[in-house]
Amino acid sequence: MQIAGMDVLSQFDRVTDYLSPNVIAQVNDQYVKVAKLKGQLVGHSHAGEDELFWVLRGNLRLEFRDRAVDLAPGQCFVVPRGVEHNPVAEDECWIVLVEPVATKHTGDVQMERTRSIEEQLA
Amino acid sequence: MQIAGMDVLSQFDRVTDYLSPNVIAQVNDQYVKVAKLKGQLVGHSHAGEDELFWVLRGNLRLEFRDRAVDLAPGQCFVVPRGVEHNPVAEDECWIVLVEPVATKHTGDVQMERTRSIEEQLA
Repeated sequence: MQIAGMDVLSQFDRVTDYLSPNVIAQVNDQYVKVAKLKGQLVGHSHAGEDELFWVLRGNLRLEFRDRAVDLAPGQCFVVPRGVEHNPVAEDECWIVLVEPVATKHTGDVQMERTRSIEEQLA
Repeated sequence: MQIAGMDVLSQFDRVTDYLSPNVIAQVNDQYVKVAKLKGQLVGHSHAGEDELFWVLRGNLRLEFRDRAVDLAPGQCFVVPRGVEHNPVAEDECWIVLVEPVATKHTGDVQMERTRSIEEQLA
């Protein structure tokens, strides 16, 4: 058990690379992660897993096949399982993610940017 | 799928009673809830379920059998499954909870304040 509260914003100090989430907590079978985004990741989907995006700073656009959703600070969005999405941030954006322990952040797409869960826990 | 981002803070407008969580999102088998606390709930535990508390406004004290943890705005804490806890807020406090769809907010204690999940979804 934690010995004290964890300041969520200060967890972003640990994030050194864009598009490279860090796990900050586990609640049941889900990880809570923080990530800094700038640029775009890659269009991808997670077959069996919903993914919650919560923007704390900056703006995030979630591009879907047929439309896009713009998220301002304080806004959240749940991408349902199986829905292809591409997170795009023109400027630096800080987000909290909630997703299953098993989720790969690039979904079904394996690429140079794909970080193993061991790296995300570091 | 949502058609737009959801502003988390504005979800607290829907919360009319203290100690009475409202579900704002589901991600996989977890609910994300908002709640306003003032006073104390009741010492309780959830046998098989972790519970994440994230304080957005005000201050929250989590009382455990052997100690207490004080949470300031922006801080979060995961209460591991099976650990008896009592959330106490001297003044109004706004929190986000992440917990399994099955979780009762008063855990193994059934009391007048216990809200059914149908009420929490209203």
